[in-house]
Amino acid sequence: MKAWRLTAAHEPLVLTEVDEPVAGPGEVVIDVRAASLCHSDVGFLDGTLTGILGFTPITLGHEIAGVIASIGADVTSVAVGDRVGVPTAFGGPGQAIDGGFAEKVKVGADWVLPLPDGISFEQAAPATDAGMTAYHALKLGGVTAGTKLGIIGAGGLGSLAIQFAVGLGAEVYVAEINEAVWDNARGYGATAVAKDIMEFADTGLEVIVDYAGFGTTTAGAIDAVAPKGTVVQVGLGRERADISSQNVVFKELRYLGSSAGSHEDCAAVMDLIAAGKASSILTEIGFDEIGEGIERLQRGEVVGRLVAVLPE
Amino acid sequence: MKAWRLTAAHEPLVLTEVDEPVAGPGEVVIDVRAASLCHSDVGFLDGTLTGILGFTPITLGHEIAGVIASIGADVTSVAVGDRVGVPTAFGGPGQAIDGGFAEKVKVGADWVLPLPDGISFEQAAPATDAGMTAYHALKLGGVTAGTKLGIIGAGGLGSLAIQFAVGLGAEVYVAEINEAVWDNARGYGATAVAKDIMEFADTGLEVIVDYAGFGTTTAGAIDAVAPKGTVVQVGLGRERADISSQNVVFKELRYLGSSAGSHEDCAAVMDLIAAGKASSILTEIGFDEIGEGIERLQRGEVVGRLVAVLPE
Repeated sequence: MKAWRLTAAHEPLVLTEVDEPVAGPGEVVIDVRAASLCHSDVGFLDGTLTGILGFTPITLGHEIAGVIASIGADVTSVAVGDRVGVPTAFGGPGQAIDGGFAEKVKVGADWVLPLPDGISFEQAAPATDAGMTAYHALKLGGVTAGTKLGIIGAGGLGSLAIQFAVGLGAEVYVAEINEAVWDNARGYGATAVAKDIMEFADTGLEVIVDYAGFGTTTAGAIDAVAPKGTVVQVGLGRERADISSQNVVFKELRYLGSSAGSHEDCAAVMDLIAAGKASSILTEIGFDEIGEGIERLQRGEVVGRLVAVLPE
Repeated sequence: MKAWRLTAAHEPLVLTEVDEPVAGPGEVVIDVRAASLCHSDVGFLDGTLTGILGFTPITLGHEIAGVIASIGADVTSVAVGDRVGVPTAFGGPGQAIDGGFAEKVKVGADWVLPLPDGISFEQAAPATDAGMTAYHALKLGGVTAGTKLGIIGAGGLGSLAIQFAVGLGAEVYVAEINEAVWDNARGYGATAVAKDIMEFADTGLEVIVDYAGFGTTTAGAIDAVAPKGTVVQVGLGRERADISSQNVVFKELRYLGSSAGSHEDCAAVMDLIAAGKASSILTEIGFDEIGEGIERLQRGEVVGRLVAVLPE
């Protein structure tokens, strides 16, 4: 079968022929129907995140939805033909094991989540990572009805987070450098949109979630959040951030790292999308375009989520 | 009366003659018996913290113990002759109003805390700030019996924190660049002492409290703490810290700012010291030596706490 594999940092992905996976005991093989491209994939290529890959060459792709093609011994939780997604996690496909930028992917049966009716594979793929991660960070930050919330970055994660947070009844202020997506943010119900979170420094933001993580965004969140506020870090556009520890102490802040989420988070997100309460902005591409797609993502040319759609 | 006043950043304190304070309604005047010198005083002088002073010229001194000299109208919580300390807080003496490097200091009656029997003025003075702050940070970090705890800095705050934490039943690992105080740390019951917290990176530290705050110490704490761990920031030796936001996310850390503490924290510390379960290492100086004392502190020549003792 065909698979997009990473050989080393700073090298483009290579489309190559590999053996089809076979489900061992407790494992399932999924026919990939949709695999979306994540900023982490850029990080795996550019050296930022390459070190956490389990091995190389490795098939990337960690936002996966598809249909169970075969099951190994002792698998009872899913059956052949089930529509499933694979919630992203450390140790999972496209990072520690071969991933979903391939026609088929093999995972442990307890890694998969059945999809509700009413969600497409294309929407389910980014929900396994971008959606779950966006949602988990809001929960970790304690966002609830009435929370004055800052969201930094209105890309794949942030645009979902705006919808989730507005749905929770939060008052949402969005910082996004790309003015092309401001109207989307407003359309989702954001109270205000600006280029820099510091423009909301006088707003009394109780929680700020940084879905960008470009160092300066983290520093801005620490400076802009209200006393006794919470800053949640999700995005990792840069490895490091130069922050005011003085503000952390004087304002008695909480700065929390949020990574991925639970199956419960992912299931909640799938249900919200299936119910029409949130959705990712998608640009569909063909399987053969995945390599070029990551380069587009790296150049910052993509609005919303690129999702590779595989034929049935 | 005589008072040590700060006129501007980068200028030495000036010993000068000022009017004696008079207690208005709800206020008390304290005869200062002991006022200890804090690293924050260095920060007020060197520009790092000068900006948070309420006005200049201002009398510094925020670690104060003494005897109520007079009370204003409507004060019933304390009486003339009571032994008291003044728990440090934003808005308090030596920062927002004239402080305790003077023969007398005036504060709101609800700012003072009666001292238990068995604690000297000299021990009570640093307990109002170093002690309370050290204790509050341990509580904020969730330190309890069995916690694997890293403490960075075994100076005024850290040496008290080691004693409090050992008393709580924690397993304490100390990072302190000044080897001269290592034996003290061991004597307080620390399991191990090293120059750099990174030497305990494989120890599985669940909580690290950074009482130094030199940027590099914060970065080291973020790198050294165990997954899902907590780093508490107390010290502010530098304004900023360049940290790995990647580690914050991947390890799902909590980085918490801890500032001062509550009257309950302060009372708990006073009781521990009165009961002989903890004490500050003190070097007593005369009131006239306060200016020189801050310069000694700035040059890093001081072990433990310098406390100015005023005659009865």
